[in-house]
Amino acid sequence: MKKEDCIFCKIANGEIPANALYEDEVVKVIFDLSPASRGHVLILPKNHFDNVYSLDSQTAAHIFQVAVKIANGLKTALNCEGLNIVQNNGEAAGQTVMHFHMHLIPRYKQDTVNITWVPGENSEQKIEELKAKIIPYL
Amino acid sequence: MKKEDCIFCKIANGEIPANALYEDEVVKVIFDLSPASRGHVLILPKNHFDNVYSLDSQTAAHIFQVAVKIANGLKTALNCEGLNIVQNNGEAAGQTVMHFHMHLIPRYKQDTVNITWVPGENSEQKIEELKAKIIPYL
Repeated sequence: MKKEDCIFCKIANGEIPANALYEDEVVKVIFDLSPASRGHVLILPKNHFDNVYSLDSQTAAHIFQVAVKIANGLKTALNCEGLNIVQNNGEAAGQTVMHFHMHLIPRYKQDTVNITWVPGENSEQKIEELKAKIIPYL
Repeated sequence: MKKEDCIFCKIANGEIPANALYEDEVVKVIFDLSPASRGHVLILPKNHFDNVYSLDSQTAAHIFQVAVKIANGLKTALNCEGLNIVQNNGEAAGQTVMHFHMHLIPRYKQDTVNITWVPGENSEQKIEELKAKIIPYL
């Protein structure tokens, strides 16, 4: 299923041309046009999913299998020193296009990528409280 | 297969006790002890893989299926405004424990999580050059 006026639906399904790195029946892998680093790509499912929450099981499985394949290709071809996989859900998490996409970002010395947080603390009590809240929804 | 002296092997296989949110034959999901936000968890495969590059296809598929399940649980239970999935490979990418792990980080207003980069530019020529380099390794 595609969604009207979704730019990633149009790219993934060829209505808008994109110079893809990889394509199969389920996904298209494109280069980010405003890359974080050399070789920054996005994995897009051809079907429309707003975000990770709505992914079906088969598509989810395939996306990460493709991620492993592409990660290996990037590492070998570009000789990057590291690689981040980043997948944002919701504006509060930095998602700007509301069609699921997974970033693969090769890392190099002195690149501009910044993935940080101030570490908090977890206690056994906090963890028990979280488990009691979350487990009923799994 | 497990690796001697790997702390995440010991946690995932129960040699070191951990208060898990979820467990099945392939993975264990634990709470990060220095969480980026409330509900920050890690998905660990029970077998040892240093990073994404060496994941086998079946484990890769399962990990992301579990990620979808846990993401839905976190969202519903904690009512977070967004969620980041982050998976770091190599010290240059911020990986600190050399056993594959996937972060699921619920996002809230005014949390301390920062995932940013300075956007570069890609031209058709750069993309053609990258494709020519990478595709032989896919």
